[in-house]
Amino acid sequence: MSIVVVGSVAYDGVETPYGKVDRMLGGACTYISLAASFFHPVRIVAVVGEDFDDADAGLLASRGIDLTGLERVPGKTFFWQGVYSADMNDRTTLRTDLNVFADFDPKLPASYRDSEYLLLGNIQPALQRSVRNQMKSARFTGGDTMNYWINDYRDELLQTIRDWDFLLINDSEARLLSGENNLKHAARKILAMGPNTLVIKRGEYGAMLFRDDTFFVVPGYLLEEVFDPTGAGDCFAGGFVGALAACGFDLKDPKVDRMELRRAVIYGSVMGSFCCEKFGVDRFRTLTRAEIDARYQEFKAFTDF
Amino acid sequence: MSIVVVGSVAYDGVETPYGKVDRMLGGACTYISLAASFFHPVRIVAVVGEDFDDADAGLLASRGIDLTGLERVPGKTFFWQGVYSADMNDRTTLRTDLNVFADFDPKLPASYRDSEYLLLGNIQPALQRSVRNQMKSARFTGGDTMNYWINDYRDELLQTIRDWDFLLINDSEARLLSGENNLKHAARKILAMGPNTLVIKRGEYGAMLFRDDTFFVVPGYLLEEVFDPTGAGDCFAGGFVGALAACGFDLKDPKVDRMELRRAVIYGSVMGSFCCEKFGVDRFRTLTRAEIDARYQEFKAFTDF
Repeated sequence: MSIVVVGSVAYDGVETPYGKVDRMLGGACTYISLAASFFHPVRIVAVVGEDFDDADAGLLASRGIDLTGLERVPGKTFFWQGVYSADMNDRTTLRTDLNVFADFDPKLPASYRDSEYLLLGNIQPALQRSVRNQMKSARFTGGDTMNYWINDYRDELLQTIRDWDFLLINDSEARLLSGENNLKHAARKILAMGPNTLVIKRGEYGAMLFRDDTFFVVPGYLLEEVFDPTGAGDCFAGGFVGALAACGFDLKDPKVDRMELRRAVIYGSVMGSFCCEKFGVDRFRTLTRAEIDARYQEFKAFTDF
Repeated sequence: MSIVVVGSVAYDGVETPYGKVDRMLGGACTYISLAASFFHPVRIVAVVGEDFDDADAGLLASRGIDLTGLERVPGKTFFWQGVYSADMNDRTTLRTDLNVFADFDPKLPASYRDSEYLLLGNIQPALQRSVRNQMKSARFTGGDTMNYWINDYRDELLQTIRDWDFLLINDSEARLLSGENNLKHAARKILAMGPNTLVIKRGEYGAMLFRDDTFFVVPGYLLEEVFDPTGAGDCFAGGFVGALAACGFDLKDPKVDRMELRRAVIYGSVMGSFCCEKFGVDRFRTLTRAEIDARYQEFKAFTDF
């Protein structure tokens, strides 16, 4: 009864109007698994180098995350450095050192095979497919992608997502993937590509859920201060899948309770909002389930009419 | 028992990816009053030239709008021409001929003095104040403004909105007026300037309502096609104030039902969404109250969790 999360574990250097951190734990797999761990057991598949700090592995382990699939190989851990604009809506990548991540070949440990949920972070579509093929019994599978794969690996990506139950991308990726500017039209085309459920993230503006006869929109949480938005989208994914896994949701079942699905979108939004409150993963060092549930209730309060 | 709406009645030339209309009825007062007329009786104060078409006056009259305050003077009606970008998020003004609107000196007809609600469209702040002073008995007063008045007539604007019960502006105007990028901080500062209620419009992303202990956010309606967004913000204002007037809402009363206020924000969003479905005011020629209520229920359905 676990969620397998596959993706990058990295070190990030981030500068925002609130400050600058030269090197801190980051990566999609890190953010996703930390967020999901508040809802359901998580197992990760990732690769790091010899420089990976035991304290960082310790943080993941402290959240009960299974690190059997965290390979340590000779070389350095993936490093990304970026700087945000004053309004935080744009970021510029200053440096991307793939390091050991360049040869990442995700292998599912034998002990992971009974896992029920598979969440594929943004990596090469062929690698995503390879993991999916190692875990065919998953109750549901889905993940993220990005403009680079949509543009340059389109056929491979289409072949990959054909087998997914859900796709979770942002609005510009949805437009790029579908070739449609209008998100309603975009969603219709993407749902025809395979996934039965589509979540479109819109950053500070919230998120949308599309699934056959279900359409749900939630506005973003209005934070007092956004310290560092890095990883917010991944935390959304972790919260969303975590909440679905926690209630044993089966995306393949056409008769499932749509309200559970909507609530999972709210939990995704909640986790994304917490992520922005401190630099990197720092907010997750102290976050409690009670705080998560209180923010869920805030979403109720500010959207109810 | 009426809403007085003050602002521009104009002719617009509009080009969007869906088509081009060289000359059609437009102007903030037109859009506001058409939208509000579906909820409550409306009386307008505006000026037009000798070229103003009887058929256009007829459309307003057909919605029961009182035209006693629509002055006809020698010269031409205000003309605006603009073109929208492919994604409709930007527009370029090609031509602004103020014509008779340059000397607009709004005068409240004696028959309007018993009106209870005053909605001031985006005009010179001193003119807004002059109308407000002609109608001091109003149950509530508020309106719109724009970047030009915020930048170049700041003191006059601050003096004007000090007496208002509500201010209804878009997010970039809220940032400009407050000097705060974060909308929560911006709202706090603006509420300290006078209005007890602030609505921030966010275009396709919806709207936010701020008032002492009340905070409400609604996402935008996802249209299949946006033919022409001209006037959508004004229709939001008309729907919002119309719905408040229809339930006898008193913004000055600290004990009013917050849910009525939230529902008015939804009606504003509903009217803004209908506005975009056809060019200019065309959607309001056929719109029915039943369609409005059905869309209100759609908002319920796609935001409920």
